[in-house]
Amino acid sequence: MNPMNDLANWQTQAQADTEIILERILPKENRVPATLHQAMRYSTLDGGKRLRPLLVLAAAELGNRVQAACEAAMAAVECIHVYSLVHDDMPAMDNDSLRRGKPTCHIEFGEANALLVGDALQTLAFDVLSQTTDLPAQRQLRMVQVLAKASGSVGMAGGQAIDLAHVGLMMVQEDLEHMHSLKTGALIRAAVQLGALSCPDLSDDALQQLDEYAKKLGLAFQVIDDVLDCESDTATLGKTAGKDEDANKPTYVKLLGLSKAREYAENLIAQALQSLANFDHRADRLRQLAQFVVARKN
Amino acid sequence: MNPMNDLANWQTQAQADTEIILERILPKENRVPATLHQAMRYSTLDGGKRLRPLLVLAAAELGNRVQAACEAAMAAVECIHVYSLVHDDMPAMDNDSLRRGKPTCHIEFGEANALLVGDALQTLAFDVLSQTTDLPAQRQLRMVQVLAKASGSVGMAGGQAIDLAHVGLMMVQEDLEHMHSLKTGALIRAAVQLGALSCPDLSDDALQQLDEYAKKLGLAFQVIDDVLDCESDTATLGKTAGKDEDANKPTYVKLLGLSKAREYAENLIAQALQSLANFDHRADRLRQLAQFVVARKN
Repeated sequence: MNPMNDLANWQTQAQADTEIILERILPKENRVPATLHQAMRYSTLDGGKRLRPLLVLAAAELGNRVQAACEAAMAAVECIHVYSLVHDDMPAMDNDSLRRGKPTCHIEFGEANALLVGDALQTLAFDVLSQTTDLPAQRQLRMVQVLAKASGSVGMAGGQAIDLAHVGLMMVQEDLEHMHSLKTGALIRAAVQLGALSCPDLSDDALQQLDEYAKKLGLAFQVIDDVLDCESDTATLGKTAGKDEDANKPTYVKLLGLSKAREYAENLIAQALQSLANFDHRADRLRQLAQFVVARKN
Repeated sequence: MNPMNDLANWQTQAQADTEIILERILPKENRVPATLHQAMRYSTLDGGKRLRPLLVLAAAELGNRVQAACEAAMAAVECIHVYSLVHDDMPAMDNDSLRRGKPTCHIEFGEANALLVGDALQTLAFDVLSQTTDLPAQRQLRMVQVLAKASGSVGMAGGQAIDLAHVGLMMVQEDLEHMHSLKTGALIRAAVQLGALSCPDLSDDALQQLDEYAKKLGLAFQVIDDVLDCESDTATLGKTAGKDEDANKPTYVKLLGLSKAREYAENLIAQALQSLANFDHRADRLRQLAQFVVARKN
């Protein structure tokens, strides 16, 4: 079977599983406060590539995962990701009206609710990740720590702050990479680490090699994001195309040009695959996801 | 010695300790992204009654606390509290310009930074609480879980959502109490639970009795907040006085009248003290804090 067809089937299944897990952990929409819960569900369910949960799951295939811990991690990384999208889309930040092919949360529910949706989704991530499972408590506490470090002011939120501070300014490649290593890279790395941590049998050496993979993958993901923002149209992306250009933001395309940017992403993916050299066929999902990241259209 | 003078000395010391702990866990202000870190420090340091950290500490006096876990909890509850203040003060919510006697975060640093400050302070709470200490990991994971449940959409953030949904509407007392039990009560209860959890020797029975105390205290705190908002002036409060009246928000004063509201708070405090009946002198700080809550002027 063509490995990319095989990946597509696995992805479809894993996305459906992610949806079921999120559906289960999100409060029901008639639960008080109902508007907040409706808005949380609106923003989280039925959309997105679910790249981060898929990375959790793919990394967890390398060992004997504790299923409940793995599922908690899949939900937690997606809750953090969605919270960041909801807040980033707000007028005070990117002021965007379209996300995953739907009106953004603040357009649909108002700014005050969007603020609370993001806040409560972040909390929900730590809630679900701190519920006891059969994983040793020490290792589960480490999962919470990994997610927190990846999400905060020296992780994802910090990257967003650096991004904001550089609208209209040119950045050298090193600074651009630092910004992206925080803004999108940190959570992608956390996803891979969390999947591996949900397997009690994976060593710290394995975790280290996986982190090398995730670093390169995260960077490649962002380079391709810039390429797609420039090449694609709004209908394909499901979010506003060309907005980095409009916002006068520094991008890899501006820095390197389109074809060099794509070439750079492909090099990064080759390095990511190299970091998996010590793993057997159980790392094939991670390998395929790396290929997918450069081949994707949205 | 007059016990309230003794309390005042203890409070001053505990507030100074809280400041030192927060100073230590907050990223330095020259660390990248520097503006975000400056704004986090501006909002968190040098202000507030520190009621929640004081409750952590007072509850931890009931057992043999693991100092690092207790300090982490003191910092974590304050980070959650400050994040909620920063977001609540934003134009999309209460649109307030004064907090703890200073311009609010969004006035000083802009809305985008205020959004990120709140986001990153919430993450920091879970970061600091998930760092390993000498407390058994199982119990520390439980602390994370307690804080998450108290902060999210069926806790503090949920209370805020209910509050928002009722501006300009009258609420019956039961609904008003439900709203406050989430908006301020949940985190006050969490503070007491976290302090107790930082003592490996405190039983679940003790935790249960302490929770009864905290429920009554949290409610009394809110009733007095409404009284002060009505009676006091802006200079004394350090935040805008009379704003609940202006915002046409339901309050205990509107529901019960000033003197009945104060009487109700005093009854609640008596019940809180009753819940501590099984504890010896080590619960005296909790007893004194309950007295303080009704006697305070801001």
